[in-house]
Amino acid sequence: MKPTVGFVGLGLMGRPMALNLARAGFPLVVWNRTASKADDLVVAGARLARSPRELAAAADVVITIVSDPPAVEGVLWGADGVLAGLREGALLVDSSTVSPGLATRAAAACAAIGAGFLDAPVTGGTWGAEKGELVFLVGGEAAVLDRARPVLETMGKRFFHLGPHGAGQTVKLAMNLLFALEVGALSEAMSIVVGAGLPADRLVEVMQASMGRAPVLDIKAPLMIEQRYAPSFPIRLMHKDLGLALDLANQLGVSVPMAAASREVYSAVRGAADEDLDYAAVARYWQQRKKR
Amino acid sequence: MKPTVGFVGLGLMGRPMALNLARAGFPLVVWNRTASKADDLVVAGARLARSPRELAAAADVVITIVSDPPAVEGVLWGADGVLAGLREGALLVDSSTVSPGLATRAAAACAAIGAGFLDAPVTGGTWGAEKGELVFLVGGEAAVLDRARPVLETMGKRFFHLGPHGAGQTVKLAMNLLFALEVGALSEAMSIVVGAGLPADRLVEVMQASMGRAPVLDIKAPLMIEQRYAPSFPIRLMHKDLGLALDLANQLGVSVPMAAASREVYSAVRGAADEDLDYAAVARYWQQRKKR
Amino acid sequence: MKPTVGFVGLGLMGRPMALNLARAGFPLVVWNRTASKADDLVVAGARLARSPRELAAAADVVITIVSDPPAVEGVLWGADGVLAGLREGALLVDSSTVSPGLATRAAAACAAIGAGFLDAPVTGGTWGAEKGELVFLVGGEAAVLDRARPVLETMGKRFFHLGPHGAGQTVKLAMNLLFALEVGALSEAMSIVVGAGLPADRLVEVMQASMGRAPVLDIKAPLMIEQRYAPSFPIRLMHKDLGLALDLANQLGVSVPMAAASREVYSAVRGAADEDLDYAAVARYWQQRKKR
Amino acid sequence: MKPTVGFVGLGLMGRPMALNLARAGFPLVVWNRTASKADDLVVAGARLARSPRELAAAADVVITIVSDPPAVEGVLWGADGVLAGLREGALLVDSSTVSPGLATRAAAACAAIGAGFLDAPVTGGTWGAEKGELVFLVGGEAAVLDRARPVLETMGKRFFHLGPHGAGQTVKLAMNLLFALEVGALSEAMSIVVGAGLPADRLVEVMQASMGRAPVLDIKAPLMIEQRYAPSFPIRLMHKDLGLALDLANQLGVSVPMAAASREVYSAVRGAADEDLDYAAVARYWQQRKKR
Repeated sequence: MKPTVGFVGLGLMGRPMALNLARAGFPLVVWNRTASKADDLVVAGARLARSPRELAAAADVVITIVSDPPAVEGVLWGADGVLAGLREGALLVDSSTVSPGLATRAAAACAAIGAGFLDAPVTGGTWGAEKGELVFLVGGEAAVLDRARPVLETMGKRFFHLGPHGAGQTVKLAMNLLFALEVGALSEAMSIVVGAGLPADRLVEVMQASMGRAPVLDIKAPLMIEQRYAPSFPIRLMHKDLGLALDLANQLGVSVPMAAASREVYSAVRGAADEDLDYAAVARYWQQRKKR
Repeated sequence: MKPTVGFVGLGLMGRPMALNLARAGFPLVVWNRTASKADDLVVAGARLARSPRELAAAADVVITIVSDPPAVEGVLWGADGVLAGLREGALLVDSSTVSPGLATRAAAACAAIGAGFLDAPVTGGTWGAEKGELVFLVGGEAAVLDRARPVLETMGKRFFHLGPHGAGQTVKLAMNLLFALEVGALSEAMSIVVGAGLPADRLVEVMQASMGRAPVLDIKAPLMIEQRYAPSFPIRLMHKDLGLALDLANQLGVSVPMAAASREVYSAVRGAADEDLDYAAVARYWQQRKKR
Repeated sequence: MKPTVGFVGLGLMGRPMALNLARAGFPLVVWNRTASKADDLVVAGARLARSPRELAAAADVVITIVSDPPAVEGVLWGADGVLAGLREGALLVDSSTVSPGLATRAAAACAAIGAGFLDAPVTGGTWGAEKGELVFLVGGEAAVLDRARPVLETMGKRFFHLGPHGAGQTVKLAMNLLFALEVGALSEAMSIVVGAGLPADRLVEVMQASMGRAPVLDIKAPLMIEQRYAPSFPIRLMHKDLGLALDLANQLGVSVPMAAASREVYSAVRGAADEDLDYAAVARYWQQRKKR
Repeated sequence: MKPTVGFVGLGLMGRPMALNLARAGFPLVVWNRTASKADDLVVAGARLARSPRELAAAADVVITIVSDPPAVEGVLWGADGVLAGLREGALLVDSSTVSPGLATRAAAACAAIGAGFLDAPVTGGTWGAEKGELVFLVGGEAAVLDRARPVLETMGKRFFHLGPHGAGQTVKLAMNLLFALEVGALSEAMSIVVGAGLPADRLVEVMQASMGRAPVLDIKAPLMIEQRYAPSFPIRLMHKDLGLALDLANQLGVSVPMAAASREVYSAVRGAADEDLDYAAVARYWQQRKKR
C-alpha cells in the first residue's frame, strides 16, 4: 500500500509536484498558506489540512517546499507546525532552498521525534516539476533516501546523494550562485557590446560557436535581448539565494568577491523592477540606467 | 598566384598559424622579437625579415598577432615598424587582442597609406590554431574581408563580420570577459562546496545534469580540482584582457561591477602565482589563502 | 534610592561599564557566560546571578552587551533567559550591536511583559568604557530613555536619541560600516604607495595636511604601517557588523557595492589571520599576499 | 631678476594659479586650448603664446596643468608641443594629475633636452589655488625642486618631496582614491540610514561625536543631504583618477577590490548625471535609483 504523503507549499514548483503525486495514486494531504491554491489538488483527490501540524499527524512522508528560511521556520516550528504533528518513524523531506544550517536544525528536531529527515532542494524549474523530471540534491542518510525514493521518483528523474544533512542545500546554493553569476556576466558583456553600438545577439552567436557555448545562452540571452522577463525563476528568489550563499561563504571563511558584487546588482534590480520578473532581468541593470 | 604574406608574432598562437600558411604554399616572410622562434618556419620555407618594416615592404598581406597594446604599438608605429613599410594597396590584419580604439587608430594609419585594415582577433586556442580551425572576429569593411579571406581561410573555419573597425575587438573583449567571469564564478562556487567539506566534483556533476551544463565545465573544472594549470590561455593575458574590457566599459559609460571584482581577483592570483599558468588558476585564489 | 541594575555580558566593553556602575553605588547583579570574568565585579560588591532569568527577576534595569545576534537571542529568549525573569515596569537596555530587526523583536517581547526597551549600542571603545565617556546611540521612546538616563549617565557622556526601536542599531551599523570602509580604503591606498616603493607614512602625512585629515588616520595608520594589531575592536566583530549592515541594506533594497567588496576583504583577512586582531589588520590583506 | 614663466592650462585650477604668478611680478607667457580663457591674464600683463612650443621657447620655467593624460600628451609631445620648444637648462613642472608612468616619460624627454622635470600635482581645490595655499606633491630631484621653489611658492604653501619622478603622481592618485572611497562610503552609509526612514544628518552628527570626525564630513555631507552638487572637484575627473589609480595598482600587482567597486559606482553616476557635478554626487547613485 502506498504511504500517505503530506505536501506543504503549493507555489510555482510545489503545485505541479503535488499533482504528480496525486496522479500516481499516493494518498495526499496538502496545506498552503493561501488555501485557494489547493483547489485543483482537492479536485484531484487530495485532502486539505487545516494546519501543517494536522497534515503531519496524518502523513507517512511530509514534503515541504516554501519560499525562504523564515517560511520554513514558520511551517516547521510555528504554532501548529509540522514538528508538532510529525509521527515517530515518519519522514520529512524539505525541498525548499534554505541554508545548510537550517537543514541541520530540522534534522536534529526530527531525530528528537524519531523521524527521518532529508534536505532535498530541486533543480529543473517549473517545466521539470510538471514533467516529473526534477533533479533532487539530497543531504542526509542514504537509508532515509532509500525509504523516500518511491515517493520522490514520482517527481524527479535524478537523485544526487551529496553528503550528510545540509549537503543538498550547500550544493544547491553553489549551483544557484553559478547561475546568478553566469547570467550577470552575460548582462555585463552584452552591455559593453550594446554600449559600443553593436547588436548583442552577435556576441551570443560568437559564444555559441566557441568553447563558451551553453544552454543558458540559448535560454536566457533572447529574453535579455528582447527584454521579456516572464518569471521562470523570479529575481526575488535569486536575490534571496545569493544572500544565503554569501552567508554560508562568510560563515565558512570563504571570500567570494564576485558573488558579493553580483548580489548588490541583483539587489539594485530587485529594488528598481518588479521583483517577480525572471532573474534574467538583471540585464535591466544597465538598460534602465541609460534612460535617466 | 598566391599573395605574399608577412607574419609578425610567432608565439603560442602565431607560430602554428604561420605554419599553416607555409604548408598551404603562401610565400611567407616572418618576424618575431625573439628571432629563434622562427627556426621551424624558416625550415618550412619562410624568409626571416630583419624588421617589421622590411617584412611589410615585401608583403601583400601583413598579419600581426602579438601580446598586448604596447606590443602592437611597437610593431606598427615603432622605428622600422610595419606602417613604415606597408605598401599602398596592401592589407594589414591585426589578430592580437587589443582595444577597439587601437584598432581604429591602426585603420586610420592604413587608410593614410592607401592600405586596407581589419581587426581580426581569434578564438579557439592553440588547438584551433594548429588545426586551422580558428574563429575570426572581424571588424572593418566587408570588401576588405573578402580580399583577405583566401589567406585567413588557411587558418580559420569561421569568420564573423561584426561591424566597422574595432567591432572585432569589442566582441572579443566581451567574450573573454565572459570566460573570465565564468571560470571565476566556478572558482567561487567550488570554494564554498570545498569549504563545507564536500568534494568539488559533485558540484560539477550536478551542474552537468542541469541547464548549467557547458563545455567550459568539462574543460576547466578538472584542472581546477586537480590544480593542474598548464597554460592554454595564460592568466597574464586574461588579466590584461579584463583590463582592456574595463577600460572600454568605463569609456562607454557602462558600469560592470562583477567584471571589476573579477579583475582584482585575477590580479591577486597573477601577483601570487606564476603568471604564465592557465587562467583556471584563479581557483588558487582561495586555495592558497587557506594555507596561511 | 538607586535602582538595582542587572548587567549581562562582561567582555572588553561590559566589564568596565559594569565597574563604573558599581563604583557609582548602584546595587548590581551580574551574569556572564564565563563566570570567572565576574571576579573583580564581585570584589567591587556585585552579586553574581546563576542565570539571566534570576538576574532579571532581581533588577529594575537590565543592561545586556554581548557579542552577536545569536548571543543576544540566547541571553534574552533562551531557557532561563532575561525575558523569563523580567519584571513588569522594569527596563531592558541592549547595548550589543545587532540588527534593528532583533531590537524590534526584543521591544515587542518587553512590551508584552509591560517592560520598557531601548536599543542602545555604544561607541567609544574600551577607553570610553573605562572613563565612563561612551556615546550611546538610542532607539525607542524618549520617556523610556529619560527613565534610563540616571543609570546610563554613569557609563556615557552623550546620548543620541535617534528614533523608534531599531534606530540605534541602524545608525550604529551605518557608523561601523563607515569605519570599516575608511580603514579598508586606507589599506588599499597604502598598498599602492608601498607597491610603488614609497613609504606609506608619506601618504598619511600628506592626507593630514589636506581636507582628508582625520583622527582615524592618527589612530589606525601607525598600527597598519608597523603591523601592530592589538585589538581595540577585533576584526571578528567588524566582519560580523559588516554582515549585519549588508543584511540590513539588502532587506531595505539599498545597493551597497563598496560595502559588499569590503566584507569579502575582511572575510579573507579574518580567515587568514588571528580573528581577534584589531580590524586595522585588514592591511594584512595585501601584505600577506605578497609573501606567497 | 625673476625667471620668465610659461603657464599651460587655464582651467578651474590653472587660472587662479597663473594670476598669482602675474601678481607676484613674474614675466608670464600663457597658453590654453580655448584662448578666450586667457583674457584676464592678458589684462594682468601676461603674453598669450600661439602654441605650447612658442611658449616653451620663451620660458625659463614651464608649468602645465591640464585635465588628463591625453591632454598632457598633446601639450607635451603634440605638433608644436612644449617639448619641441623647451630650452636646455629650463624646468618643466607638470601639475596635472596623471599616471606615474607618464611622469617618467616626460622626465626622460626633458633629460634628453637637458631640461629639468618635476611631477607636482596639487591638492587644495580652487580655494587653495586662489589663496596661493596649494599643497604640492612632488616627484623628481631635490635640486630641481629647489630651483623651482621661488616660482612654486607663489602658488602653494606646502611642498612634499615624495621621491623620484612619478612619486608625486603616485601619492596624488592614492590620495584621490582615499577621497573617492570616503565619499562613496558616506553615500552607502547614508543610503542605509535614509532607507530605514531616518534622517541622514543624524549619522553625520554621531560620526562627528566619535573617532570618525573629519573635515570631509563637514564639507561633503551637507551637499549630499541637500543634493547640491556645484563642482568643487567634478565627478568626471574623480572617475578619471580612479581609473588611473586602478591602472597603477594592477600594473604593480596590488589587488584593490574596494577601489574597483567604487570606480563602477562613479562610472554609473557619471553616466547618469551631469559629469561636471561635484563627485559628492556619488550620493545620487541610490537616490536616483529609488525613483524608478
